[in-house]
Amino acid sequence: MLIPQNFFMREADHVEGFAPEIPWVTEVGDEKLEEPLGLRPTSETTIGEAFSDWINSYRDLPYEINQWANVFRWEKKTLPFLRTSEFLWQEGHTAHATEREAYERTMSALDEYERLCEEFLAIPVYKGKKTPSERFAGAVDTYSVEAMMQDGKAVQAGTSHYMGTNFAKAFDITYLNKENQHVHAYTTSWGASTRLIGALIMSHGDQNGLVLPPTVAPTQIVLMPVGPWKKNPGVMEKLDEIFYNLKEAGYRVRLDDSDNTPGYKFNEWELKGACIRIECGPRDIENGHVIVKSRDVADKQKVAFEEIDTFVADELTAMTPRLLEKARKRVKENEYLHINTLQELKEHIETCKEEDKTPGFVLIGWDGTEETEETIKEETGFTTRNIPFEAPMEKEVDIVSGKPAKHTLWIARAY
Amino acid sequence: MLIPQNFFMREADHVEGFAPEIPWVTEVGDEKLEEPLGLRPTSETTIGEAFSDWINSYRDLPYEINQWANVFRWEKKTLPFLRTSEFLWQEGHTAHATEREAYERTMSALDEYERLCEEFLAIPVYKGKKTPSERFAGAVDTYSVEAMMQDGKAVQAGTSHYMGTNFAKAFDITYLNKENQHVHAYTTSWGASTRLIGALIMSHGDQNGLVLPPTVAPTQIVLMPVGPWKKNPGVMEKLDEIFYNLKEAGYRVRLDDSDNTPGYKFNEWELKGACIRIECGPRDIENGHVIVKSRDVADKQKVAFEEIDTFVADELTAMTPRLLEKARKRVKENEYLHINTLQELKEHIETCKEEDKTPGFVLIGWDGTEETEETIKEETGFTTRNIPFEAPMEKEVDIVSGKPAKHTLWIARAY
Repeated sequence: MLIPQNFFMREADHVEGFAPEIPWVTEVGDEKLEEPLGLRPTSETTIGEAFSDWINSYRDLPYEINQWANVFRWEKKTLPFLRTSEFLWQEGHTAHATEREAYERTMSALDEYERLCEEFLAIPVYKGKKTPSERFAGAVDTYSVEAMMQDGKAVQAGTSHYMGTNFAKAFDITYLNKENQHVHAYTTSWGASTRLIGALIMSHGDQNGLVLPPTVAPTQIVLMPVGPWKKNPGVMEKLDEIFYNLKEAGYRVRLDDSDNTPGYKFNEWELKGACIRIECGPRDIENGHVIVKSRDVADKQKVAFEEIDTFVADELTAMTPRLLEKARKRVKENEYLHINTLQELKEHIETCKEEDKTPGFVLIGWDGTEETEETIKEETGFTTRNIPFEAPMEKEVDIVSGKPAKHTLWIARAY
Repeated sequence: MLIPQNFFMREADHVEGFAPEIPWVTEVGDEKLEEPLGLRPTSETTIGEAFSDWINSYRDLPYEINQWANVFRWEKKTLPFLRTSEFLWQEGHTAHATEREAYERTMSALDEYERLCEEFLAIPVYKGKKTPSERFAGAVDTYSVEAMMQDGKAVQAGTSHYMGTNFAKAFDITYLNKENQHVHAYTTSWGASTRLIGALIMSHGDQNGLVLPPTVAPTQIVLMPVGPWKKNPGVMEKLDEIFYNLKEAGYRVRLDDSDNTPGYKFNEWELKGACIRIECGPRDIENGHVIVKSRDVADKQKVAFEEIDTFVADELTAMTPRLLEKARKRVKENEYLHINTLQELKEHIETCKEEDKTPGFVLIGWDGTEETEETIKEETGFTTRNIPFEAPMEKEVDIVSGKPAKHTLWIARAY
């Protein structure tokens, strides 16, 4: 966790980028340390030092490690899950013999984050390249997946960095190649953090609380007796039977037989994001069915006892893609492709404010200068998200300078 | 991870005990912090602060949480796994309504550590109470499980602390009881760390490397072709078949078909602690058997093809208790029960040195004074381990003062 100050100093861009946010240990007990130790903001420097020891021959490559670790980046203003001074993340580090292989690993890590977000968390993402000013300190190129929350603001959901030989040179990561020469390795790193939990909450939640895809919901199914169930032991007998069947089948299921009212229970389990609610009362027992409601669907429906297993299996399979589709639709509705000048952007923001809509993601043309990025940020609070791999259209002029655009990129307000 | 200095100050014994080992963050970037932040040596103080918020009514009790976390205790001299300035551990924290319940939880946590060590890691332990001078800083009582390594030295393998209301008073952990009064909760905490990996290595390892119980061995079975196997494709066909069968059955199995010599492979997999080695060459194919060797048994044996599954299942089940028995026997042989004076202890140590034996664990009588502990430590390097719940005999006089013994306790050199 503790990184000697001189490690940071070895990669000039790296130290410059992270210096203001690093907490320094300067004393132990009553004694002053000779060299301050920084709390890791990310581990390229220690991993670089270790790679220098561990990697000696082309036979050692490719080299790949991953760690889950707590890291520190000091924040003046914090926000639960999204912006905390200490956070937990996963960071992968790799070293390769060729530029091409390292670049491909950078991309495949990014693809994994895209899959994690979309297929697992039902959060649609924009995959693309960061502009130089938003690059990881010390990287040749940084790529990201960006997600749009319900308020139109962006969350950077994962990043993948191609380092070239920058860190290999700073930390002496060399190996003997097949031609018996000592050469530098090409490295990558990539990370995603617990801020994904924040993105998950803000992507799907509604007025009643959490909406979670079954892939990650702590409670996938909640069962509860309704009506005068205490006088009819058959209700709890049936619910017990359903409970054990579903548990046996491997689902995360809960049975709420507390004394709270049905209304209280509905609210509580909606708040907690239980995916499927199954109610059963004395009359349902007579009719041979239960009443079922999915968290993300307005209507209730009746499901016959003998069809519960199939229903639950189908519904839990369907829910994650359904949440993803719903989020995709929302995201599309908040994309703005036809804003071409700073004036139009300001008007767009003003209109959205008046109409109580989110200003969303705006696709702009960019001449490649930092001036344009700075001006947009100062005048509107929007920041560049990324240069998408697949833009819905190509923009022709820079939104600020009016000069020919070199890139088309997404801008948005961001967390 | 970061604990404000004033948190430490609230429990006087706690700060006194940990102060010399705490690394302090005093600056972030270029700015000096108003209050230094300590890197947690253990989390009672932050957890105490949180419990104060989380616990309000008797309905909230008992309250129990557990975290796996990195903690810091500065060490001048470090030793891999056993003594490192940063280490990973598990720490449990509980709060209870009654003294009795808190005490029982302290004991049940200790029982869990005993089971973890003995049934899972095959490390026999001494369960007992620490002397006041070895107590956790701020605890009413500290209990430990102590393990004896092959060199006779002790490793404290896990500790469990009964705090009474010490931390509840320091951190205002109060709740409304059934009689509508605000009262303090009784708390406990307990932890075990990655030093258990060190204890595991030093309990079972031999001249050839790691010896690991099948419960934790990364490789439970290693298969390897021997003899002129490359000319006889039947050998690899058979090994492939065995490999997939064992893998299918859920074992951690490896097939080493590298070009290294059998001798090299034997050494490598013994070094790594693979539990069972299975060799097969052309002649074995003809005879319908394989040659099997368990890591902890000297002899090889022949096992018919059709009996491999049963043999492996039986042998892996038998190995952990067998390692435990072997360790128990060794530990018993290095217990010394009849040393009654400091002079006898010194002679014992001298004799062991001459005979190249370990001085082991020595059972002594203790009058309950710190003076006795201090004198033993200064004159022999032995420290008090614990007052065992089940002593093999009761000692009658203090080893130093000769006064009547209040307790019987184990002393040893320790890591």
